[in-house]
Amino acid sequence: MKLLIINGPNLNLLGRREPDVYGAGSYDELTRTIEDFARGADIEVEIIQTNSEGAIIDAVHGAVDTADGIVINPGAYTHYSYAIHDALKSVDIPAVEVHLTNIASREEFRRRSVVAPACVGQISGLGFAGYIAAIGYFKSVRVGAAGKGESRGRRGIPN
Amino acid sequence: MKLLIINGPNLNLLGRREPDVYGAGSYDELTRTIEDFARGADIEVEIIQTNSEGAIIDAVHGAVDTADGIVINPGAYTHYSYAIHDALKSVDIPAVEVHLTNIASREEFRRRSVVAPACVGQISGLGFAGYIAAIGYFKSVRVGAAGKGESRGRRGIPN
Amino acid sequence: MKLLIINGPNLNLLGRREPDVYGAGSYDELTRTIEDFARGADIEVEIIQTNSEGAIIDAVHGAVDTADGIVINPGAYTHYSYAIHDALKSVDIPAVEVHLTNIASREEFRRRSVVAPACVGQISGLGFAGYIAAIGYFKSVRVGAAGKGESRGRRGIPN
Amino acid sequence: MKLLIINGPNLNLLGRREPDVYGAGSYDELTRTIEDFARGADIEVEIIQTNSEGAIIDAVHGAVDTADGIVINPGAYTHYSYAIHDALKSVDIPAVEVHLTNIASREEFRRRSVVAPACVGQISGLGFAGYIAAIGYFKSVRVGAAGKGESRGRRGIPN
Amino acid sequence: MKLLIINGPNLNLLGRREPDVYGAGSYDELTRTIEDFARGADIEVEIIQTNSEGAIIDAVHGAVDTADGIVINPGAYTHYSYAIHDALKSVDIPAVEVHLTNIASREEFRRRSVVAPACVGQISGLGFAGYIAAIGYFKSVRVGAAGKGESRGRRGIPN
Amino acid sequence: MKLLIINGPNLNLLGRREPDVYGAGSYDELTRTIEDFARGADIEVEIIQTNSEGAIIDAVHGAVDTADGIVINPGAYTHYSYAIHDALKSVDIPAVEVHLTNIASREEFRRRSVVAPACVGQISGLGFAGYIAAIGYFKSVRVGAAGKGESRGRRGIPN
Amino acid sequence: MKLLIINGPNLNLLGRREPDVYGAGSYDELTRTIEDFARGADIEVEIIQTNSEGAIIDAVHGAVDTADGIVINPGAYTHYSYAIHDALKSVDIPAVEVHLTNIASREEFRRRSVVAPACVGQISGLGFAGYIAAIGYFKSVRVGAAGKGESRGRRGIPN
Amino acid sequence: MKLLIINGPNLNLLGRREPDVYGAGSYDELTRTIEDFARGADIEVEIIQTNSEGAIIDAVHGAVDTADGIVINPGAYTHYSYAIHDALKSVDIPAVEVHLTNIASREEFRRRSVVAPACVGQISGLGFAGYIAAIGYFKSVRVGAAGKGESRGRRGIPN
Amino acid sequence: MKLLIINGPNLNLLGRREPDVYGAGSYDELTRTIEDFARGADIEVEIIQTNSEGAIIDAVHGAVDTADGIVINPGAYTHYSYAIHDALKSVDIPAVEVHLTNIASREEFRRRSVVAPACVGQISGLGFAGYIAAIGYFKSVRVGAAGKGESRGRRGIPN
Amino acid sequence: MKLLIINGPNLNLLGRREPDVYGAGSYDELTRTIEDFARGADIEVEIIQTNSEGAIIDAVHGAVDTADGIVINPGAYTHYSYAIHDALKSVDIPAVEVHLTNIASREEFRRRSVVAPACVGQISGLGFAGYIAAIGYFKSVRVGAAGKGESRGRRGIPN
Amino acid sequence: MKLLIINGPNLNLLGRREPDVYGAGSYDELTRTIEDFARGADIEVEIIQTNSEGAIIDAVHGAVDTADGIVINPGAYTHYSYAIHDALKSVDIPAVEVHLTNIASREEFRRRSVVAPACVGQISGLGFAGYIAAIGYFKSVRVGAAGKGESRGRRGIPN
Amino acid sequence: MKLLIINGPNLNLLGRREPDVYGAGSYDELTRTIEDFARGADIEVEIIQTNSEGAIIDAVHGAVDTADGIVINPGAYTHYSYAIHDALKSVDIPAVEVHLTNIASREEFRRRSVVAPACVGQISGLGFAGYIAAIGYFKSVRVGAAGKGESRGRRGIPN
Repeated sequence: MKLLIINGPNLNLLGRREPDVYGAGSYDELTRTIEDFARGADIEVEIIQTNSEGAIIDAVHGAVDTADGIVINPGAYTHYSYAIHDALKSVDIPAVEVHLTNIASREEFRRRSVVAPACVGQISGLGFAGYIAAIGYFKSVRVGAAGKGESRGRRGIPN
Repeated sequence: MKLLIINGPNLNLLGRREPDVYGAGSYDELTRTIEDFARGADIEVEIIQTNSEGAIIDAVHGAVDTADGIVINPGAYTHYSYAIHDALKSVDIPAVEVHLTNIASREEFRRRSVVAPACVGQISGLGFAGYIAAIGYFKSVRVGAAGKGESRGRRGIPN
Repeated sequence: MKLLIINGPNLNLLGRREPDVYGAGSYDELTRTIEDFARGADIEVEIIQTNSEGAIIDAVHGAVDTADGIVINPGAYTHYSYAIHDALKSVDIPAVEVHLTNIASREEFRRRSVVAPACVGQISGLGFAGYIAAIGYFKSVRVGAAGKGESRGRRGIPN
Repeated sequence: MKLLIINGPNLNLLGRREPDVYGAGSYDELTRTIEDFARGADIEVEIIQTNSEGAIIDAVHGAVDTADGIVINPGAYTHYSYAIHDALKSVDIPAVEVHLTNIASREEFRRRSVVAPACVGQISGLGFAGYIAAIGYFKSVRVGAAGKGESRGRRGIPN
Repeated sequence: MKLLIINGPNLNLLGRREPDVYGAGSYDELTRTIEDFARGADIEVEIIQTNSEGAIIDAVHGAVDTADGIVINPGAYTHYSYAIHDALKSVDIPAVEVHLTNIASREEFRRRSVVAPACVGQISGLGFAGYIAAIGYFKSVRVGAAGKGESRGRRGIPN
Repeated sequence: MKLLIINGPNLNLLGRREPDVYGAGSYDELTRTIEDFARGADIEVEIIQTNSEGAIIDAVHGAVDTADGIVINPGAYTHYSYAIHDALKSVDIPAVEVHLTNIASREEFRRRSVVAPACVGQISGLGFAGYIAAIGYFKSVRVGAAGKGESRGRRGIPN
Repeated sequence: MKLLIINGPNLNLLGRREPDVYGAGSYDELTRTIEDFARGADIEVEIIQTNSEGAIIDAVHGAVDTADGIVINPGAYTHYSYAIHDALKSVDIPAVEVHLTNIASREEFRRRSVVAPACVGQISGLGFAGYIAAIGYFKSVRVGAAGKGESRGRRGIPN
Repeated sequence: MKLLIINGPNLNLLGRREPDVYGAGSYDELTRTIEDFARGADIEVEIIQTNSEGAIIDAVHGAVDTADGIVINPGAYTHYSYAIHDALKSVDIPAVEVHLTNIASREEFRRRSVVAPACVGQISGLGFAGYIAAIGYFKSVRVGAAGKGESRGRRGIPN
Repeated sequence: MKLLIINGPNLNLLGRREPDVYGAGSYDELTRTIEDFARGADIEVEIIQTNSEGAIIDAVHGAVDTADGIVINPGAYTHYSYAIHDALKSVDIPAVEVHLTNIASREEFRRRSVVAPACVGQISGLGFAGYIAAIGYFKSVRVGAAGKGESRGRRGIPN
Repeated sequence: MKLLIINGPNLNLLGRREPDVYGAGSYDELTRTIEDFARGADIEVEIIQTNSEGAIIDAVHGAVDTADGIVINPGAYTHYSYAIHDALKSVDIPAVEVHLTNIASREEFRRRSVVAPACVGQISGLGFAGYIAAIGYFKSVRVGAAGKGESRGRRGIPN
Repeated sequence: MKLLIINGPNLNLLGRREPDVYGAGSYDELTRTIEDFARGADIEVEIIQTNSEGAIIDAVHGAVDTADGIVINPGAYTHYSYAIHDALKSVDIPAVEVHLTNIASREEFRRRSVVAPACVGQISGLGFAGYIAAIGYFKSVRVGAAGKGESRGRRGIPN
Repeated sequence: MKLLIINGPNLNLLGRREPDVYGAGSYDELTRTIEDFARGADIEVEIIQTNSEGAIIDAVHGAVDTADGIVINPGAYTHYSYAIHDALKSVDIPAVEVHLTNIASREEFRRRSVVAPACVGQISGLGFAGYIAAIGYFKSVRVGAAGKGESRGRRGIPN
């Protein structure tokens, strides 16, 4: 199993500046945390970071023949990039949207994700652990264990 | 470590009816999945289900002296129960909101959670695995490993 | 044929106070009117009234093995209880929403029903006769006579 | 007792085309169903159908000296014809709005009726049976039996 | 004179936790403050607290034969419980809505009360003194002194 | 202790005209009621009335060195005068907003106060008694008795 | 000078029914009032009434070669007929919109006119006198006296 | 008969500057046009102009014992001065709102008048002739001729 | 192949008046341009123009047995006629909506078409050429050449 | 004559995946269809595809000296890229916006184009034929035949 | 060159109170800073401060014959005073709006200026330096150096 | 002191085309004007222009170790690029947003800046002089003279 981890705009500055805001972990620590967990879970990961919307779309397209799943933190593009939404819809690879912070308790504009409807699900507010949880999800789907009860977007389903 | 798992309205019907909609797993299977994982992770869990908003608030209050964390699936109350929001704010126990389905790709009214701003974070769309991921988050916070990068709701933070 | 008649919050006060506002009929008269009509139509009815949202959900769930149809007047919950909406969606029993008054000509907030989309249809403004009409509908569906032309919610259908 | 039944735009195509969408009953069957029921209930009915907003207004005006009640399915005019609203207000004949389908579960624009506030009440989603229920309502009002509890639009009334 | 004091969800936690947020006074101190003042003013008070919307409605109904006035702090139900609004409208007992905090300077959703239109008036932001002011109002109305100038909701009235 | 009582536009006409609308009490009676109560409570009051927004701002500024508290009925300026809001914020004197009528049950535009967020709290619908309650509040704060539980606008506080 | 007076839907019922609502004057009286005034002012008028939107458009088109001005009361079409708006824009004849009632103090939907932007101006609330005022305007424009100060829609103009 | 003519902010600059925008007539010409017409109609007029909202309110109050009607052009205050709205409601003198320009075809914010609901009616877009029409209306009301058909704001009235 | 070309309100005035606004081509030239092109393309066309919404609906219905496609310019009805929307949905003939002007760059209200969702597609801003393009589309569909890539309204499709 | 054809994000995947969604034609077939038609029409075309917003802007700028017209399918950028809107406005080359699908019948967010106001017109829903129609439009403009009736965005124009 | 500097409501309190909020500089220091800079730049300035909307309008009018430019900080009137907007439009003197604070990062209501559209431009967030920049702008315009690139409000202009 | 000047999309075309729209100054003249002023003020400037959102973010990041301040004209990205907003928040370098035109008097969508809340302030409408004013602001902050009164975004501050 191979996963593509896409980190969007401004995530490269993670941990380098304003540690009281961004948390103690640097971007390098994030990538190492992901890689360590993935290795332990026997999952191959490719991690990229870019500030360009077009480059994110290119990366999603590039995953078509190379990845079994996508973990994506679209940064601020989350809130307006219908183009990334379309890119994820255009490929038949399941994706999980991850946010380090709890976007529900921040500025109003961060509460709406236009990308999430094109994903399997969304994890927010768990810090680095959000990436781990997303990778763990793909792992659990593969072993056919935790997928039960997973029923997306049909009417009348309990939340 | 002890966690309180709160399941809100209509989740009791899970798996009993319309399996093509609700998924193959029954509510009993959900509780067993959670209990199995928790046992393996050496975490004590108490799982409750109720259709009553007031009873959910009572349960949150009851956790004050008995739980280290709350995993809550507020069902449809997610979208209008400011009273549950206030209950979670009133106690100093971290909570993670979980939804079986990807609420971002369902009806418009399901896209807004009034409960999430009172939580550490939110996981949606991962089915049973969402509960596992939430419990795993509390586990990881305890071992002080994955919490890095966790910085909630401050301005200028990458998502 | 057995129908469950659910009356929501404040309907218990019907006719007891302010007869110029609530009309001449008391809640007892309402139940008697319903029972008389049902007996004449050879339909078994169970009538409940509760002010609790959770209890309404429990009642809907309880109908799963006991009723062929639901007639529900959700009172003010009509306008915000997505949980009752979900409860009706969760069971495969047809329901008809009834309102004594014409909610279209009252306060703005009463004009939107979040419950109706989970029902077969809605009857408003006909007073006690609204309940009779709802029961008559279930009767007519059974005898396979009046159901013709019933086509719910497909695009391009005349209203 | 004489009732005027007004069917608005596109209802003439009922049953002629796309039976999977419009239901099995044709417009002729609808008129026959109504006439049969009315005959049995000893009520005289006049049924008209027109695609023209102005013609509907003319018909409402024409009922002034000829009808005791109006059953109206305004078709798509339901959602924007304030002129039909005014026409119904201008005559002192009670009217009931009927829709074949459950307009609450269709496109957003169908959820608002600008005509209903000028009517006694509204019936939706019951197919042909909706017309029967409306006629039955006028019948029950006349015999002074079911009108109890009928209290339209005053504040504080339970729904 | 007898007054019913209704405290809604989460008010039971008052003063027990986070004193810097909730203020120094506990819920017990609140009830004692109210009881002391009432005793001095020769007014009988019954104080209840519940987290359940349905129980609040039941309490309002129960006041019909037992109370001359209601002082109600509906907690977060203030912002969406049309059912409590209807309950207060259904009984002919004057009610005053009280909030400990100034809801006008908190989150956007707290600025709108759907309950207040069913009350005589509203007091917010005065802490425990708000309850005292509400009881004092009922006292003053009885002695026929301070009610002058009280003219609710007619157009053209100065605020 | 000295309080400044500011009455805004149109309050000068109180009681002079349309007594069925404005209530029996005249503006003179209002000022006398306030002065009598203040005298009894050993509080010095200065009462002013003006129809000019600028003059209200000037009065607020003038209170800086002369008053311990402000009771303000901004009349219709309540609903749009951000300048009065700023004036109250600019001085460090606590203010209580008072309305004779229950603004929550009048025209839509009266439901929002842009001035209240700059005040300690708001009292509406209690007629002349609203002024008494506001003065009583300042009295109680001074004696350090009733201020308990006063916690304005922090998140998670029960209302 | 010749003017075309167009009366839209439901105005034909004027004065025939509900005199307490519509006023004492009948539609015939309205036309006679207009014709009397016009004769005295030496203006030829043609008055038409129709309930059909299309017929109003046809009438506007028909005025192209026959009228010097249009006085139009579009009835309820005022609020949604962009087609009548376009018709008035399509001909180069000045038009004045007239309403018998003060649409600013009625239902919310009556406050917006989509037709007025295609007119020279609008007169509302003056009853029959509104038509007289509109005809008087055309008279005054012709004699070149009252048109001064008439400057439509440029920015920075006092109202 | 005596009328008070109130001209609000910026109308004093009328005709002095930018004649292509404001029209050829100066403010002096406007007052002379009004005075000439009033003299011919045997009506006494007092004309005032002020840029101050408070002064307009004072003027309205001052009319209580001195005027039989008010013609008011509130300038830009039209769009937000609820205080002027209240002032007009507070006195029992009929008022007509006048605008030189067609406010329906200017900037969006000019389309809504918060003052008009407190008036008998509104005239816009007729330039100086609008004032003449308003005075003529008061004249016609007195002679009891043109008032027929005047029915303000009742539901179901044709416009 | 036979196409029905429907031109809605005000299009009859095309080219007759205000050539600087409407363009040099008259309505006759438009019909001739269409007929010439159709003849060259071996397509039979029937062109109608009407100002009546009901007549447009009748025409759409009439096409059921006589036309293979509809080209419709609904004029201003585009923006509110849900009845025309329903008429097009009610027949199984593909339709293309055409506008002479670029409705996206005109008044706000013209930017929304309620008719377009019932059509195959929409062409705007191309003048007479828009009709030619629409007819050309039907031609190309027939020859099975250009239809490729035509995929309407499914999610995830590139625009 | 030379035209620049710009295809935006995700169009490169056209036809390669999910043929039931995207249609049978691949992106290569699209380009070939365009080139074949252009060759037959004696028009030179340059076709580019990019997922980058900035690259689209660069391409538009680059057309300044090289192209006589632009055919642009901005993909999802259609709905938020004011920068592309500005780019098209910045150059004096006419552009036609093309969409393969009928954006009026898809998700709400796709119904608004922020790019279209900077174009001559828009074609949607015609699949590959939409590009052909756009090129045909430029052709027809050149031969001066079909441009008649083309009048963009002036008020009062029939649609 | 002479400039009129208008400071609106509450600016008189600048620096006198709450220096941590208002900054170290007092209103006197502000005026001195402005006067010093103006003297150095050989520009005559007149500085006024008033809390009255009407007085600001009077001041703008008074500048007609006495000033070459206006620098205006309308305080909270910025957000609702269409009367000041009209005043600035009524005179042909260029004005620059200045705000000490960055209104884009404060409360929602401060983000909209209804005055700015009547100005040449707006400067916010630069503290005292904002006034200096505004005066410097008028200086630079006079010397004909910096005005280049100044192109206001035409479509297609880069920002 | 070193400043980074960032010019966003379409600014490269400045002055090259449509001089009546963009003004007489070219982009080269803009850069020269800036460089000349900076040299005179003894400030080092680096000026970049790009049409790519990602490149702007990269440039902001690149300023971390190289610049003391940022002057940014984000072009149309101003109105939707939360990613640029986040980039500016992510670095601790003060930024001033500049617009050549007065965005408050252009299209509605240009009135909102999502970037400005991440800046110290904003200057609009002053043409080239806006850049000069921004640079002058940084100069004045350094010399500690003009910063007084600079207090950003705290409540109750005069604007």
